[in-house]
Amino acid sequence: MSDVLNELAEILEERKQADPEKSYVASLYQGGTDKILKKLGEEAIEVVIAGKDGNQKEIIHETADLWFHCLVLLAHNDINVQSVLDELGRRFGLSGLEEKANRNK
Amino acid sequence: MSDVLNELAEILEERKQADPEKSYVASLYQGGTDKILKKLGEEAIEVVIAGKDGNQKEIIHETADLWFHCLVLLAHNDINVQSVLDELGRRFGLSGLEEKANRNK
Amino acid sequence: MSDVLNELAEILEERKQADPEKSYVASLYQGGTDKILKKLGEEAIEVVIAGKDGNQKEIIHETADLWFHCLVLLAHNDINVQSVLDELGRRFGLSGLEEKANRNK
Amino acid sequence: MSDVLNELAEILEERKQADPEKSYVASLYQGGTDKILKKLGEEAIEVVIAGKDGNQKEIIHETADLWFHCLVLLAHNDINVQSVLDELGRRFGLSGLEEKANRNK
Repeated sequence: MSDVLNELAEILEERKQADPEKSYVASLYQGGTDKILKKLGEEAIEVVIAGKDGNQKEIIHETADLWFHCLVLLAHNDINVQSVLDELGRRFGLSGLEEKANRNK
Repeated sequence: MSDVLNELAEILEERKQADPEKSYVASLYQGGTDKILKKLGEEAIEVVIAGKDGNQKEIIHETADLWFHCLVLLAHNDINVQSVLDELGRRFGLSGLEEKANRNK
Repeated sequence: MSDVLNELAEILEERKQADPEKSYVASLYQGGTDKILKKLGEEAIEVVIAGKDGNQKEIIHETADLWFHCLVLLAHNDINVQSVLDELGRRFGLSGLEEKANRNK
Repeated sequence: MSDVLNELAEILEERKQADPEKSYVASLYQGGTDKILKKLGEEAIEVVIAGKDGNQKEIIHETADLWFHCLVLLAHNDINVQSVLDELGRRFGLSGLEEKANRNK
């Protein structure tokens, strides 16, 4: 798999074994669902604030932060990010989904 | 480009020409920044609620909703979704980014 | 009791007996915790948006909406609003709290 | 005025003169609208999380935190908290409002 979200998801999976003192992600896992959701919620607020400012750089930065914490939530719940992408694809009848689904197996 | 987010972003770009009475996305664009951000914020709350429930199906569904509205925000601000993926990749030193960036041109 | 929050809390308590088809508040109770929290979260996002706009009238309106839904959450959990006010008072060593507490009995 | 919210609002007004290094509230004012809104948004997420847990003590604590940051937002925008209470009262045709309004002058 070559795309960033799937690669990142793999890294996040590996970090489940990391030391919470050394890895931010591992400290999130250790904090559990509430800690992950608080961070995810905070990042969503920051996207809203950036969206109001209408500053492209800020919007990109904050959206990346939000998606990152979504990926942590997915990993924490043993959900493959591809499931979210497939769900998005299904709603829009996007091509290439079958291929993706196969690749993912 | 074969991946779902980029394909979806293209569709969202096309919907800028759609009739707000017939297209949900076009109605969001017409509502402007505040309407898009309200929906994005609502979806983030729904991810938090789903996360508390710890139900995989709900988390997938709500995360897809959240990302979808993020994509609408990006399109509304003329931001390429690849910029967000590149930002995520940069932070994690992910391979294949250059390739992606080239593919995206 | 003369103050608005306590009066409003009493009304919200009474609405637990109301018809969800006729009363917005009763429809929230019927929707349960998730429905109440979704509305509360939405209103918080609207306060953030109003705060970014810096428009006094909007901020007042959206803060009232947010507090209203907080009161519904409190009622739904059989929590007296005075407990929240007492908590706020305790943190700031405010006078008149004992008086309030007595009045509330 | 005897009630907690009005007393607290007075304290928050005074803190506009305080040293941001020593006063949390003064540090929020110094951080400006974005900092206040981020904190307010975070607290709203924590109310949602507490609401899902259905723990009364947590709900009281987090609602107090949320309202506190709302009061800071109001003060930052030179809005009297009584305006929010009046707005709530108006919607519900509560008694004693005229009295309140007069007291507030």
